[in-house]
Amino acid sequence: MAARSIHLNAFLMSTGHHEASWRLPESDPAASTDLDHYKRLARIAEEAKFDSLFLADGPVLFPVGQRPAGTIEPLTLLTALAGATERIGLIATASTSYNSPYNLARRFASLDHVSGGRAGWNVVTTAGAEAARNFGLENEPLHAERYARAAEFLDVSFKLWDSWEDDVRVGDKQSGVWGDNDKIHPARHRGRYLSVQGALNVPRSPQGYPLIVQAGSSEDGKSLAARYAEAVFTAQQTLGEAQAFYADLKERTRKLGRDPETIKILPGIVPVLGSTEAEARARDAELEDLIVYEHGQRRLARLFGVPAETLDLDRELPADLPDEDEVEGAKSRYTLIVELARRENLTVRQLIGRLGGGRGHRTFTGTPEQVADAIGDWVQQGAADGFNIMPPVLPSGLQLFADHVVPILRRRGLFRHDYQGATLRQHYGLERPANQYVSDTGQPAFAGARA
Amino acid sequence: MAARSIHLNAFLMSTGHHEASWRLPESDPAASTDLDHYKRLARIAEEAKFDSLFLADGPVLFPVGQRPAGTIEPLTLLTALAGATERIGLIATASTSYNSPYNLARRFASLDHVSGGRAGWNVVTTAGAEAARNFGLENEPLHAERYARAAEFLDVSFKLWDSWEDDVRVGDKQSGVWGDNDKIHPARHRGRYLSVQGALNVPRSPQGYPLIVQAGSSEDGKSLAARYAEAVFTAQQTLGEAQAFYADLKERTRKLGRDPETIKILPGIVPVLGSTEAEARARDAELEDLIVYEHGQRRLARLFGVPAETLDLDRELPADLPDEDEVEGAKSRYTLIVELARRENLTVRQLIGRLGGGRGHRTFTGTPEQVADAIGDWVQQGAADGFNIMPPVLPSGLQLFADHVVPILRRRGLFRHDYQGATLRQHYGLERPANQYVSDTGQPAFAGARA
Repeated sequence: MAARSIHLNAFLMSTGHHEASWRLPESDPAASTDLDHYKRLARIAEEAKFDSLFLADGPVLFPVGQRPAGTIEPLTLLTALAGATERIGLIATASTSYNSPYNLARRFASLDHVSGGRAGWNVVTTAGAEAARNFGLENEPLHAERYARAAEFLDVSFKLWDSWEDDVRVGDKQSGVWGDNDKIHPARHRGRYLSVQGALNVPRSPQGYPLIVQAGSSEDGKSLAARYAEAVFTAQQTLGEAQAFYADLKERTRKLGRDPETIKILPGIVPVLGSTEAEARARDAELEDLIVYEHGQRRLARLFGVPAETLDLDRELPADLPDEDEVEGAKSRYTLIVELARRENLTVRQLIGRLGGGRGHRTFTGTPEQVADAIGDWVQQGAADGFNIMPPVLPSGLQLFADHVVPILRRRGLFRHDYQGATLRQHYGLERPANQYVSDTGQPAFAGARA
Repeated sequence: MAARSIHLNAFLMSTGHHEASWRLPESDPAASTDLDHYKRLARIAEEAKFDSLFLADGPVLFPVGQRPAGTIEPLTLLTALAGATERIGLIATASTSYNSPYNLARRFASLDHVSGGRAGWNVVTTAGAEAARNFGLENEPLHAERYARAAEFLDVSFKLWDSWEDDVRVGDKQSGVWGDNDKIHPARHRGRYLSVQGALNVPRSPQGYPLIVQAGSSEDGKSLAARYAEAVFTAQQTLGEAQAFYADLKERTRKLGRDPETIKILPGIVPVLGSTEAEARARDAELEDLIVYEHGQRRLARLFGVPAETLDLDRELPADLPDEDEVEGAKSRYTLIVELARRENLTVRQLIGRLGGGRGHRTFTGTPEQVADAIGDWVQQGAADGFNIMPPVLPSGLQLFADHVVPILRRRGLFRHDYQGATLRQHYGLERPANQYVSDTGQPAFAGARA
């Protein structure tokens, strides 16, 4: 049963994923920088035996007018949460476009050490000119360039994480030999985007390296995921789309010679829960009433790259929006939103209402039984290995899910009763990766890499 | 009395500052990545009411043969220690040459948030080609270039840390207004080394920004310190040199229009303690016996930029070493070591023995009374505002200092009995800095900086 458990990730976000959640009487507008708020969330998720916590990230500040802005940097926050938890995985988003591999590899290895093997990295390339301009660039690098750099960044990171064999430390006090330099492997990387000469200054960590997570669903994103990812977060609105995405990604993974079981696919779901359907719908309506539509209009215009005036709140989207191919930003999110609006003939106002809940992720409004049914259906019909849970309101939405949905999933034999392993990778049913410089026989895999 | 307290910083380093400390029976060769070891050290220092903990850093791995190598990245480790302590300051070293200001400013602001205002940043420029080659460079930037970039890096960081006024958050649930964009100030920095357009995505932190610490004592280093530093760690071997350094740096600070009281000067001291002088000397000899001199010879040769064969263990240093001006690495450390050897006519072997204790910092061997005398003398004779305590062996050397030297300092009215404030800057008797975009009247200081 443990091996067959679905996987649940708690996607944490200030007062919740619904953009108006902070306006509810129960919500604290200062939650986004309140460590105690995040400790509470982490403990709820760990108590329910979630696989992991997850924090999104972008190195940029958007206008602070309408919803909680300003956060604690994710690796810092997750390091603080490592001390407040014992078993749950800790997945931080970090950008390959705006970091140096030596620095970032160090930080993830360090989090893996202090958490006892619970670190995960959601690898993103960071869309948008605003972020680029915080790092000395005039404009964002092209989408394809960002992904090519991401692949090279990962290759370098693996070299750095493997640069210590597990048994470097000798610790022979008598002879004065602390370590064996022959078991240190400098990266010696000279590539198209990156050059890194030396070995990492952090010993190989409990997991070897953090769980690799990917979350973009563009062509480039899927290629990167198939090659590197061990878990994938994705936004899928319908069962059919989710099945197609799932089959496609597992097949891409298989074609690259990887076991498709080693990549876990977790669509996002925004569960709006009530003890009756009517109560759930009332909660949904309460949140929708708090949306400020003019703000949503401006955000959509920015995503589409059009003037806000061209989006009439009470009409459907204009017919002449650019194609995904012309977009250099978050391609798959762009397409998902346009298709959602066109498929359901939504006005701009209705689209903003739908997106307010979780920016394109699937909102499911209903009773705990109904939410558990939806989760079970997608898993059984080949659309998901688990779910990225995005409560509309926090902490209450996570508490409701933990108290009412998780027990149903357990009764149905779908979800673990307790953790079976100690590390994040063990929660996801994956092996600790081998060191690329060491063959199974304990001999170096290739002599050319020796120091 | 609180205002007159000297300042004590605990400089943490795996099994201790003596290079052979790991070979003692009491030491754990795995200490450098053991979070529990560091928690123990942090709690000893906090129990004794030290101002702060400090971790050195360089983004590079040197040969692992002779002493503990591989560490947890300092900001990660201090974030973990923030959760294990309540009052003590947390000072991390980080390089201005190999970081982006947006990323690093975020991380320090985030540590300041999760620690409730206890973050400090030891600003370093990172000498050495090995580090440069981990960041895509062929060789290290010139010393003067590194310091020019450091100054600009700090200017950008202050803009980022001030980019949120303290009262951005409105949190008006009724109207749906979360924050006031007029109180956000994008950095809009375009300089010689760095361009950063936007505002930080972390609200202004409890201290406004981390305590700024500086530790290089070259001309460039002293200029940087006089302009920016609130605390200075320095290596001084004799009272005369320490007095000259102290007077020089206070005067430079005054000339820049700063109150010299706002820069605290802390020489390093390696206290080798015994309950009698003979016991202390025996401890010193025990450690010196464990030094492997051939390793020290290679390290000295690397520092001097000469072949190891030119350094005869049983002769004095060669007469024709390069001048400080020709060195692009750690200039002031270079000069200190050469002058120490020449002043005391030390053989290379004797020099290695002296350096083994603390790489050029002052080793003081004696009873707790004698160490307290030495500390008091330097403070009273205008050579120090406090000390950077570098125990030769950890944890025992820190525990001995806390149990036996601190009580003497207290009896003499030199050191606090308890913390008087909550933040690191309060421990050092300093004010929370004003926001550069806000005048004392609550109006923006200069309209041009408005968003």
